[in-house]
Order: sequence, then C-alpha cells, then structure tokens
Amino acid sequence: MQQHDNAFLAPLFLGLNGENGPLLERLLVDFLRDHVYWRRNFHPTDPPAVTVPDRITPEFSEAVARLEQELNVLSANLKKSIPVFSPRYVGHMCSDLLLPGLLAQLVTTLYNPNNVHKDAAPVTQQLELEAGTQLARMLGMATDTGTHPCAWGHLTSGGTVANYEALYHLRAARSFALALAGAGRPVARSLDVDGTPLEELPPWALYNLPLAKVLDLHDAWQTLLAGHSPGEAAALHAAVRDASLEQLGTAAFQQRHGLATPVVFAPITAHYSWAKSMQLLGLGERQLRLVPTDAHMRMDAAALAELAAAAAREQQPVLATVGVLGSTEFGTIDPIRALVELRDELQQQGLCMPVHVDAAWGGYLASMFRERDGSACPHDAMRETFRYFPSQAVYDAFTHLASADSVTVDPHKLGYVPYGSGALVVRDRRIIRFVRQRPAYLDDTTARPTASDDADPPLGECILEGSKPGAAAAAVWITHRMLPLDREHFGRLLRNTVQAGEYLYDRLQQTAEALAGRCRVVVPVEPDTNLLCIALNPAGNRSLAATNAFTRRVLSHLRLDAGQPIQTREFIGTHTSILRSRTPDAAAQRLCEALDVDAESFTDTPLDEDRDADHIFLLRHTLMNPWLFHGWDDANYMDRYCDHLQRLIIDALDTRA
Amino acid sequence: MQQHDNAFLAPLFLGLNGENGPLLERLLVDFLRDHVYWRRNFHPTDPPAVTVPDRITPEFSEAVARLEQELNVLSANLKKSIPVFSPRYVGHMCSDLLLPGLLAQLVTTLYNPNNVHKDAAPVTQQLELEAGTQLARMLGMATDTGTHPCAWGHLTSGGTVANYEALYHLRAARSFALALAGAGRPVARSLDVDGTPLEELPPWALYNLPLAKVLDLHDAWQTLLAGHSPGEAAALHAAVRDASLEQLGTAAFQQRHGLATPVVFAPITAHYSWAKSMQLLGLGERQLRLVPTDAHMRMDAAALAELAAAAAREQQPVLATVGVLGSTEFGTIDPIRALVELRDELQQQGLCMPVHVDAAWGGYLASMFRERDGSACPHDAMRETFRYFPSQAVYDAFTHLASADSVTVDPHKLGYVPYGSGALVVRDRRIIRFVRQRPAYLDDTTARPTASDDADPPLGECILEGSKPGAAAAAVWITHRMLPLDREHFGRLLRNTVQAGEYLYDRLQQTAEALAGRCRVVVPVEPDTNLLCIALNPAGNRSLAATNAFTRRVLSHLRLDAGQPIQTREFIGTHTSILRSRTPDAAAQRLCEALDVDAESFTDTPLDEDRDADHIFLLRHTLMNPWLFHGWDDANYMDRYCDHLQRLIIDALDTRA
Repeated sequence: MQQHDNAFLAPLFLGLNGENGPLLERLLVDFLRDHVYWRRNFHPTDPPAVTVPDRITPEFSEAVARLEQELNVLSANLKKSIPVFSPRYVGHMCSDLLLPGLLAQLVTTLYNPNNVHKDAAPVTQQLELEAGTQLARMLGMATDTGTHPCAWGHLTSGGTVANYEALYHLRAARSFALALAGAGRPVARSLDVDGTPLEELPPWALYNLPLAKVLDLHDAWQTLLAGHSPGEAAALHAAVRDASLEQLGTAAFQQRHGLATPVVFAPITAHYSWAKSMQLLGLGERQLRLVPTDAHMRMDAAALAELAAAAAREQQPVLATVGVLGSTEFGTIDPIRALVELRDELQQQGLCMPVHVDAAWGGYLASMFRERDGSACPHDAMRETFRYFPSQAVYDAFTHLASADSVTVDPHKLGYVPYGSGALVVRDRRIIRFVRQRPAYLDDTTARPTASDDADPPLGECILEGSKPGAAAAAVWITHRMLPLDREHFGRLLRNTVQAGEYLYDRLQQTAEALAGRCRVVVPVEPDTNLLCIALNPAGNRSLAATNAFTRRVLSHLRLDAGQPIQTREFIGTHTSILRSRTPDAAAQRLCEALDVDAESFTDTPLDEDRDADHIFLLRHTLMNPWLFHGWDDANYMDRYCDHLQRLIIDALDTRA
Repeated sequence: MQQHDNAFLAPLFLGLNGENGPLLERLLVDFLRDHVYWRRNFHPTDPPAVTVPDRITPEFSEAVARLEQELNVLSANLKKSIPVFSPRYVGHMCSDLLLPGLLAQLVTTLYNPNNVHKDAAPVTQQLELEAGTQLARMLGMATDTGTHPCAWGHLTSGGTVANYEALYHLRAARSFALALAGAGRPVARSLDVDGTPLEELPPWALYNLPLAKVLDLHDAWQTLLAGHSPGEAAALHAAVRDASLEQLGTAAFQQRHGLATPVVFAPITAHYSWAKSMQLLGLGERQLRLVPTDAHMRMDAAALAELAAAAAREQQPVLATVGVLGSTEFGTIDPIRALVELRDELQQQGLCMPVHVDAAWGGYLASMFRERDGSACPHDAMRETFRYFPSQAVYDAFTHLASADSVTVDPHKLGYVPYGSGALVVRDRRIIRFVRQRPAYLDDTTARPTASDDADPPLGECILEGSKPGAAAAAVWITHRMLPLDREHFGRLLRNTVQAGEYLYDRLQQTAEALAGRCRVVVPVEPDTNLLCIALNPAGNRSLAATNAFTRRVLSHLRLDAGQPIQTREFIGTHTSILRSRTPDAAAQRLCEALDVDAESFTDTPLDEDRDADHIFLLRHTLMNPWLFHGWDDANYMDRYCDHLQRLIIDALDTRA
C-alpha cells in the first residue's frame, strides 16, 4: 500500500472523524473572544446596550431558548448533508475544508467586511488582491506593476461569474479601437497603430488588433486626453464613450461597423456556464462553437485550427477561445500550449483570438508545476512522483498557462475553502480599464480612471458583482499563506489527489479482471488528473439502453437516499453522461467497442427505447479527499471502494439474472 | 428621550460591547462539537486518519503554531475594520448582524453545502427556496403553487446579480412568442393568442403580449409538445430553441424581427448595477433611459408616462421599468403604485412594460406593512408608531409591491445577515422556465423542463450563478424563522431604524438652529425611510466649490484613517454627491437656494474650479444600527452625533477663518 503523506496532512484538516475538533474549537473560541473584546474596547466607556439585568429577564431567556431550539433543528437537519469530509465520498467536487481557510472564513464573518470597496473592507480587499496575485504567480504570470504585461486577479462568488467577467472584459477591450475610430476624426486621426492612423484602418483590422496593442492604444488615449484642457478632454472622452459597445449595445455597435456577432470557441466538454455566458451577454448560444475532442476528451487543436482558419477567411469575429483545464466531467486537460501557439499564429494572419482558460477545477493543480522560486518544475522531476502524471500533453498545457489571456480558478474547488469562492486572473491588468463604474456614494470623484490606477486598480469599479464577503478573501489568502502555491506546499497536498487517481485507475484493473466474463468495467476516458469515470456493461449485453439501466441500478446504491440515514451508504458516488450529440463518430465507435455494445444503439435519435440511448451513463469519481490513502487491514479507501463496487455489480448481475 | 425597544432587541445581536459574547460562544461551541461528533459517527469504526500520536509530533505542533500565528496576524489586522457593530458608525449600509443568522452561517459553513444542486445540498437548497417564498409573502405575493400567478424567489450572492437575473429572465420571456412565431408554420399556426394564431400577429404585437399571456403560451406550447411523438416533439422543440433570442443572440434576433434594441427605464437614483446590467447583457447603457426624479428624489411618474407613451408611438420596445424601493444614496421610495398602474394602462395601448422593483435596500421594510396573517397593515395603524412615516406616497408604494413583476431584495442589507446574500423574487414562477440549463453531471436526464416542474423548480438550472454557499441560505432562513417577516417581528426591528431616521431629522433642526448665521445645515432630500443626507454651507459663501470643500473637510474627521487607531474617531460617516447632470433645472435651483449658494456655480461644465462644481457633496447617513436610541446622561447616540457634528463644523469654520 502506497505511503500516505500523513504527517503533512494531519494538521491541515478537521479530519474524517473530526480528529482536530479540539484544535478548531480552541482557535475559534480564542478569535471569537478577541472579536468580542475588540468591540468592548472601541469606546470602552460607552455603556452596554444589553445590560446584565437585561440578560436575566424572562423575555431574554425565552428568545434565547427559541434561538437554541431553531439551531437544534437546523443542526439536526444538516446531518442529512453529504459527508464530504469522508473518503467514502467520491462524488462531486467537494471534500473536507482546509482548517486555515475555514477558520479565517468563520472569524472574518464576525467582522463582516464588504470587499466591494476599501472603505467597507480596509483589510480584506487587500487580501483579495494579494490572493489574486498569488494565483497569477502560480500560473506563471508576471506580477511586477512596473512592466507590461502585469497580471491581476481577484475573487468572485464562483467560477461561473468569473467566466462571465472574462468575456465581459474581453468584449469591452476588443471593441475599444473601433470606439476610438468611431468617435470622430479628432480622435481617429490622432491615434495610430504602428504609424497608421485609426481612421485609415478598416473595422475588421481594428477588431483584430493584438490585445496588447489595444491596451497600448488605451495608454495613448490617456496621454492624448492629458494633453487637452479639462473641457476638451471631457468632450473627447464623451465622444469615445458614446461610440463604445458598452454604450451602444451589441446590435447597434455591430451594425455600425459591419461586423457579425463574434463567436467563442470551446470544447464540447466546456462547463454549462459557457452556454449561460453566451445567453447572458446577448451573444447567443449559437455563437458558442463547440470544438470536438480527441479520445482523451481534450479539445482537438487541429479541429480548432480549421474552425479558426475558416473564421479568418470569412471575417467572422472570434471573441475568444476557451480552453478547459480540468473538465467538469472527466478532469481532462485541453492543449493550452497548442491554443496559445495557434492564437499567436492567427494573429500573424490578422485574426485576434484571445485564449481564456477555464481552470475552475484544475487551476490549483498548477501549484504542482511551480518551484518555490517561481520557476517551472522540470518534467522529469515531476514524473518521479507519479506513475503516469503528467503526460507530455498535460505538462505542456500547465507550463503554458502563463500565456493565456485570462484564467478562471475556483478556490472553492481544489483550493479547499468554503463556497463561494471563484477567481479571475488576467495576464495584463490593463484589460480591466474598459468597463469601470464610479458611483458617487462610493468614490468622491467623477474623474475617469487613469493609467496610474493600474498599480492599485479600484476593485469595485471593474467587477461584475457588488457587495461581496471579505470573509472569502481572508479564507483564500490565509490558505495561500499556510500553503504557498508551489510544489512543496500546496502542490504537495494536490499530489495526493493525483496519486489517488492513479491508484484507483490501476486498482480498477483488478476489479475488471475479477469480473471478467461477467461484466465489463471500463475507464472510457484516460484520466489526466484526479477525476475518473467508469462505464459498466454486463457480459453478453449489446444494447446501450440496457447498459445504462444497469449502471443506474449500481449507482442507486451509491447515492444518498433522503429517506434513510447517511450511514446506510458504504460509499457515495455520482454520475455523468457522454452525449452522442457531442461525440465524434470515431470516438462513439471506440467507446462502444470498449464496452462491447452495439454501436448502432448509441444514437442521437433513439428509436427503440429498450435498445437505444443518446448517452452513455457513467459513474463519476472526484478524488480530492485528503484521506483516500488512509487504510487499515491492508486496504485503503480506494481498495475498499473497488471491493464495494465489485459487490454492487455482482448483486446487480444476480438480481438481473 | 424616546423609549428604545431594548427588551426585544437585547437577545438578537452580539451587542455594541459584545455583551452577548458568552451566548454566541456557548451556542457556537455546542454546534461545532455536534458537527465533530457527527463526523465521528458516520462510520464509527473507521479508524482516525489523524491519530493521537500524530498530534504530538513536532511537525504537527509546528504546523499548528504557524496556523495560530497566521490567524493572530489576520485577527489583529481585522481590527482595522470599520466598527459596523457600533451606533457610532452611521456610514454605509452595514451594521451588527442578527445572532441567529450569524450562528446559522457559521455552523452551516462547517457542512459546506453547495446550493446549486439538491445532491450537494440536501437540506439548504430547500431552505433557500423557503426563504424565497417568505420574501414573496412579505411583499404580498401569492405563493400557492396551485394557481397563477404563484411567486418564486431564491437567493443570489448579492443584489447586483439579482438585478442581472431579473433582466435575463424578462428578456427571455419577452422574446418567447417571437421565437414560437419564428419556428415555422407548424408551431406558429398551432398556437394562438385569444384566438389569433401567432403567425398572424406582427412582431411588435408578439413582443408586447402581456407577460401573463406569454407564460400561458408556454403552457400551451408544452401541451402541444405532449401531443406529439417523442421524435416530432424533439424536432419542434429544436425549431423553437433555434429561433430563440438565447440561441441567436440579440443582434440577429432583433434583425430577424425588425425590432430595435429594447430600452429599460430607471430613475436617475438607480444603483450603478443597472448600468452594468445593460452593458453585460449587451443592451448598451444608452438604452438605460434615466427618468428624472421629483424633489423627493422619487421617480417622476409623469415623466415616465411621457417617455413610455413616446416609446409606444415609436414602436420602441421597452424591456422593463425599474422602480427603486430605497435608493442607495437617499433611501427614497419610487412611486411603485403609479408604475404598476401605468404598466397596466400601457398594456391596454399595446405596450408591454414589466415593472421590476430594485428593493435591495428597502425590501425588508415591507415587513412593517404586513400583519401576522399576511394582510396589509392599515395606514392609520402604522402612522401611530411614527412621526412622519409612512407618507401616503410611501404607503402606496409598499402596498403595491405585490403587483410588481419581479423584485430584488438584499438579506445582507436590512436582513442583517452576513455578505453575500441577495434575492430575486418573481411574481409568476413560470418566468424562470425560459433559460434552463441541464448539465449531464448534475441531472440524469436530457429531457426538457415541463410545466410540472413549477411546483419544485430545479434551482440550479435557471439561475445565473453556479456553485453557491448553502450557509447563506441557512442564515436567511433561520432569520425569518426567528423573526417572521411581519410588523410584530422583523418589522419591529426595522421600525427602530425608521424612528431613528425621524429622530435624527428632527434633532438636526436643533443643530441647524444652533449654527444659524454661521453655517447652513440642510437636509436636501426629505427622507422616506432610514437614510439621511446633510448638506453644509458656511454663512456668506455663495460658491458651490467652496461649499463642497468645506463639507469634505468636515467629513475628513468622520472617516477612518488607516494610519490611526479606529478609536480616534468619535463617529464614522460617509458621503455622496448630487450630480448636476442628473438633476432637473428646477431641482438644482431649489437645492442652491436651500444652501444659499449661487445657482450658476452648480454646473455641468465647471469653468472656474474655485467657484463651480458639477456636484453637491453631501454627508450620508444610514441609520440601521439597532442601538442608535441607546443613551446615557440624557443623550442617545444621535444626540451625540449631532453635538459632534456641530463641533466639527465650528472647528472647520474656525480654521477656515
């Protein structure tokens, strides 16, 4: 049995049996009291509003009794929660929380700072920005405010909002040169790109300027404004604002410049928030062009190249390409290196195609690839720690994250902090200048933002959300303090999860062998990280509908049942499906062969519901719990899961027979 | 001195001196231990991953020491936070938290449920939906799932996201009839409105169907689908989906139907999230048509009627009108009654103009207008409790909330729960059917939603956010349990805040009289609720620039200074500005007269910076702290604030002289 990194992990979590409960209690009580006495010493001579006699009245006692009773009911009901702390839970992307972040979240909630503005969060807004910088460094991005590009990051309520925000910033930046050109000759002839005045550039060229040149143009625009009197500058500023996409709306802006609605490329594995993004931003889900994946469920870069080349030919604007770093359903890693190289090639051909990486799941895994000094960890050194990980493709993807234009990372996933905590990181912080809002009740100036804000961008002005909890920022920040985002610290924690994925992958072969001739147990997608899916098919069955029904029967014993105590479940898992409509023909054929089902029963239009299905139903496992290698009697939790699964399969086969 | 409702308030908050610290500690520790022992008893015989010997190793001790040190630093830094618990803080919209919600939030965070899906939040997702229903009832909406309309509500990370979501749903619903009509004859001639097939109705009519008729059409559409074979139904469904605005994008959809980009009406006092909404949704900020306000800073309903009539004449689509219930800067209440009456009138003229109420601030005040049995509290009965509140206009606004199409309410404002907690309530829950997403890893079906989902709509499929904290839902839910949203419970808490506003308003007259001849102290906008702004002008000064500079000097003593301990501030306030660009001429004239400044110095284009200003700088006070009436030596906190302000003004006058 593989050695578990127990000495390292032991102080970091509350523990599967709540082993560190006394530690959590001691620290929580200490900092709770600290908060209470801070209140008492703000103006110590202000007499208490709740006196000691107040606290012994019947009315007071009754209110406290009701409070305690309501909390009793809540606490009792919460015992129906999924036991994410336990390595017996191998379902969705949740697990035990890191103690430092949990404590920081609880303690900071007492102070309830609002990170939308410094005035309301004198401490935690800074922590949020520092956490953003730490994430940027983990990705390998430069964070020196003296040079370009200088990365910037901040926290959102979750990855979905970070994804919206990424497109929001990109759309604004991409349309800026057109706004300048459309603001009238005084602007359009005063600014230039490589010596050519904007007024001489066609809309397609302006839309497709390299992102860095757009950001340089904003600098030049600020310089131009500074050279005018306040009155003139205000007039010029208003002219550009009035010509912007943000003012005109997408329809009028596109019509004015004769441009089609831009498309966004994303792999078929993209999270459903991308469909929502396209709807929300008014771009339309039809403009989300889903790129096929290869057999590893990674975006097919060659297919993307063809689609992008066609877009360039047809002058179809491309707002962005989304690469997924850790797909929600398979944990697979898109070829980020190929994406950024393609982006750079296309730019040579006059097509701007920024790359956003949706690393909501896989972002923190980058810590395994980062040395303490910030350099990239050599591939060979990494390979020593794992059996398979990271493949060359995966290594190349992680080591090219720094070249992405923006990245979504979710601290509330592999950052092991409480919900809701997402993050957006941009490679060049100038990109957030285009959508600022400056309400009079927050900022005492009606002036426009200037380049000098870049060193300390006013958070609340350029984010999608408003009031937001500083407690989440404290949780992420202290987590990064306790476990810096390199391979020796945070990476050491995540190493266990990838090792667990490899262990389970290997161990499942034994299960498959033990069931040989009775039931196929297939891992349909080779895992890139710490997610693993299993497909089942009873021997002799050739119909996908029957396969799916069988797998659903097995899963029913791996799901919590609201009518029964959670203790009745040995293990808890979840599921996903591979949809025929999103699977290339060759891959569908291959999957059916591996499962030994009739390829014709895997069809987009099921005709015979006893035989056909438009999806392959899979058991899905997220291996992020820190205690998966923990074991007794020579069996760790993954061994026990495989044994349990084997029993469930045999039971299902028996009851089927 | 007015009697403070102390016996009621005493058990509800931690207290300005942390008086209920022992209570909070006792309950928190109890439920923390409950959680720990729950873990231990999930599978009691699973051996601990962290053993007792593990916990006495040097590595363990060192990690704990580092954790404690980091938390020490965090806790120390948090003492720079704004002291929102204290009635000496009269700045932004924050205050002490209600103990029940705080405790529920802390305790539930230990379980870390994810409300995006029932599987990940078997308990708290239901609490979120119940909290939504409770809010709907507070607003007076019907919540019986057996009839139409039946309201629905849920929580967001904040009011800004709730506002986005409101427009997102409205846009989808408003375009649905056009999608049906555009999906081909088999659909367009099979469905009708009042007997006229959709194919015979022009786009303008289809866009302007009453919202209820659109929702009925969706029912009819479901019925029509149910009458076809699965294959036919899938084809019809795809045709309608492909013709929808969500698929096509706004530009293509509008072009197809020959419609202009819709506008949204909102008062000039609307929160800046509305400008962001218009940008984010691709509608364009230019389409946010700001309606002037009257002298009370309430939307001018007559001006809105004119704008809407012009829109009807010009066939300019109107997506919605936003009424503000408690403006961010003045706490003023828009004429919701006039808005919904105008909406109904316009519908008669063929213009659909749904009303969304942004009650992020004022929403919970509706609890004061609600009797325990759900009926509206008579105006006369309410007037007995207050000196001025509620005016007829304010009473009419609150008692017509039930007629709004959707409402934003922020529990993290006047609900006194931690950030981030907003809410969206819709009057007819069918409106959330149009934008559903059903990812394979969450839902084991690829079927489309049906009307039968209405009784229990799948939360995660129809909201903008993804993973989200169930802890916030538990906090809101338990708050509503402890203090039901009627005048005897939650309303009793909020009554104090409005009374505080009235008290301060009256008390400021004394300050103004005391300073008569030396400095004008003016309340430029008569308060509708519990927000109050003050304008100052030293006697003899006629220049607005000098007025503003003076007020800024006074405010500098009411702001926390990062370089000094928070204890150096007697009181802490904040500011806002009235912008000339958003003020009608008559109102600008009136304000200048009240302040005794030269009206010409209040100008949109300041020429002489020593004299002119484009804004009037104000001190802004939010009166939501529960202890404002608490006092000693015959002076409560508001008396003390007025005395302090008076001293600051005199000091500023003296140093100026």
